Amino acid sequence: MQAFDFLTQNKNHEMAPEGKTMMLDKGLGLNAVDDLLETAGDYISFAKLGWGTSATMDTELITLKNEKYQNHDIITYPGGTLLEVAVMKNMYKQYLQEAKQLGFNGIEVSDGSTTIGVAVREQLIVQAREAGFFVISEVGKKNLNLDHEMTIDERLSLISRDLDSGAQFIIIEAREAGKDIGIYNQAGGIMNDELDALAANGIGHLIFEAPLKNQQVSLILKYGSQVNLGNIATDEVTSLETLRVGLRGDTVGQV
Amino acid sequence: MQAFDFLTQNKNHEMAPEGKTMMLDKGLGLNAVDDLLETAGDYISFAKLGWGTSATMDTELITLKNEKYQNHDIITYPGGTLLEVAVMKNMYKQYLQEAKQLGFNGIEVSDGSTTIGVAVREQLIVQAREAGFFVISEVGKKNLNLDHEMTIDERLSLISRDLDSGAQFIIIEAREAGKDIGIYNQAGGIMNDELDALAANGIGHLIFEAPLKNQQVSLILKYGSQVNLGNIATDEVTSLETLRVGLRGDTVGQV
Amino acid sequence: MQAFDFLTQNKNHEMAPEGKTMMLDKGLGLNAVDDLLETAGDYISFAKLGWGTSATMDTELITLKNEKYQNHDIITYPGGTLLEVAVMKNMYKQYLQEAKQLGFNGIEVSDGSTTIGVAVREQLIVQAREAGFFVISEVGKKNLNLDHEMTIDERLSLISRDLDSGAQFIIIEAREAGKDIGIYNQAGGIMNDELDALAANGIGHLIFEAPLKNQQVSLILKYGSQVNLGNIATDEVTSLETLRVGLRGDTVGQV
Repeated sequence: MQAFDFLTQNKNHEMAPEGKTMMLDKGLGLNAVDDLLETAGDYISFAKLGWGTSATMDTELITLKNEKYQNHDIITYPGGTLLEVAVMKNMYKQYLQEAKQLGFNGIEVSDGSTTIGVAVREQLIVQAREAGFFVISEVGKKNLNLDHEMTIDERLSLISRDLDSGAQFIIIEAREAGKDIGIYNQAGGIMNDELDALAANGIGHLIFEAPLKNQQVSLILKYGSQVNLGNIATDEVTSLETLRVGLRGDTVGQV
Repeated sequence: MQAFDFLTQNKNHEMAPEGKTMMLDKGLGLNAVDDLLETAGDYISFAKLGWGTSATMDTELITLKNEKYQNHDIITYPGGTLLEVAVMKNMYKQYLQEAKQLGFNGIEVSDGSTTIGVAVREQLIVQAREAGFFVISEVGKKNLNLDHEMTIDERLSLISRDLDSGAQFIIIEAREAGKDIGIYNQAGGIMNDELDALAANGIGHLIFEAPLKNQQVSLILKYGSQVNLGNIATDEVTSLETLRVGLRGDTVGQV
Repeated sequence: MQAFDFLTQNKNHEMAPEGKTMMLDKGLGLNAVDDLLETAGDYISFAKLGWGTSATMDTELITLKNEKYQNHDIITYPGGTLLEVAVMKNMYKQYLQEAKQLGFNGIEVSDGSTTIGVAVREQLIVQAREAGFFVISEVGKKNLNLDHEMTIDERLSLISRDLDSGAQFIIIEAREAGKDIGIYNQAGGIMNDELDALAANGIGHLIFEAPLKNQQVSLILKYGSQVNLGNIATDEVTSLETLRVGLRGDTVGQV
């Protein structure tokens, strides 16, 4: 039973399901994973083993982490950068095989660090789906200058294509830092025009990377608790949940 | 026995007792609590389970955390925001009962996120004391604009009333971020006029939230190791202790 | 076996050995140390128990941490500030004895928080070497104003003297914050003229403290994976390794 459950009963968010939370695991060990699952496992939908961090660790460790997360119904996937390195080396087939063998059940398709044509991108998504993975794609560039060159129309077009190809969610890139990229300005604040344009076709299929608290607050106050948020730091998952249900000052009485 | 104990013997701070340290627990799991207590349990007086984080977790987990902390003589209490939500819902009596049942031995009374009249506030403090809790109140607003509107006189008057009502310590609000609020300017530096005015009647009954290192350093250099500091991050408790005893560059030879 | 090992085989960095990574342990407990060693133990050369943190903990705990690190071939040493306090108290001999008894196998010699003449400094290094320790010295001041007063020539001269005295590596001070100190400007960016001057005699004997990610990226892109980096936060060791081997966006295809 949840502590103080009488304070959170009958909340609106129980009628509309809460949004997905994608957590960024930058290299947690097993004790930390156990802690995380015990304290906040119910509030995580996706655990991303950020960028290429999986490839610096032993297979046994990665396998065990995948098991622990998935026992809590959390979809796990390696960061898109690792996929990009595999594609760059023409080793995508082996990448999917190894991901499966390690127990990942999701794949992120991105071109944040490299250039991948739309036709190839489509194939990457299709093949990952065919291999049985939950597929998430990402839109945006990790290099801030390249990201600035990408127009809203290009982003919307890519989102639309990725969904057609079989991507089940689309992540809006903001990196770990969340500044001067995608929908955020240099201070990490939201650029509402960009956001509104990206959200023109609804937000149900989007996961906004929102590593900073003010971003989480703004998006929840704008869209409600059902907004999907990503790149949440491991020690901020509980805080985010309190924001979603109105148990932190920034959203008390407003969700 | 303490390592390198010959370096810390006969220090001034052993004559005057050290100030209280209130730590902000944002949702630690049990492995992390064990680590914290083993490394720094002796330096923590209060563990605040920040804002409404307690209410996102299972009763068993919260109960176990309370036991672990209290076995190290640390007073535990849920964040004031949770109390405010309970008051807003007219469920204060249940709130105190549940807090007791979960094993908390402290209560924080605040109005940082909501508006609570002084007469009600007095009753909240009185009832928590009557229920056997260690009571701490907090002065300040979590909304920065509302906080700026609060005059020093209003703060001093509230401090005085809270003490009369039975509060055992008064926290000076600074949130987790510590900027542009209470005694701190936008850069997180101390506004000395505000601080001096608030401290006019002594600092023994005050706990200054001081999440940033420069704030901890300034307050220790100004008041000595006996200053009470709060909202200390879990991984900064050891650092703070080194500042208090002159084992970090910022205070070496100055405390 | 390493996960996704086919993506990291035949990399340049396997021909030239990777640079040393010195990690800053600010007070980790045993569960966290276990996690760290299991996830990233292979990528850490030195664990510094920052400034005087060792002296706030029990001898048993410090001894156990030293054992755990050294079982992974990681050299451990207490922060230089603790040595400076010992020197200030004329207790250097006891300091070395206690360090040995606690199981440290390294010593850092610095004068970041105090003033130590060059002749004394030489003796400190010599005596630590004679006592069987791996010796690292540090160049730079923890007080930003004092640090600014130190010229490049003074730094180069100290580096040269320390090496002659027997220091095995020289750390370029940047503190935990990494801003407005040593080779970094107020924003934490690299001042290339200062850096080039300091590196005039090669970088093999230098460890650049580089707590911020942009610093790690810049130094790796400038010098390659073999650059030695220090003051890496415990939860950034894995990220740094991905930067070194080109598995994070900032260095993909560039190392």
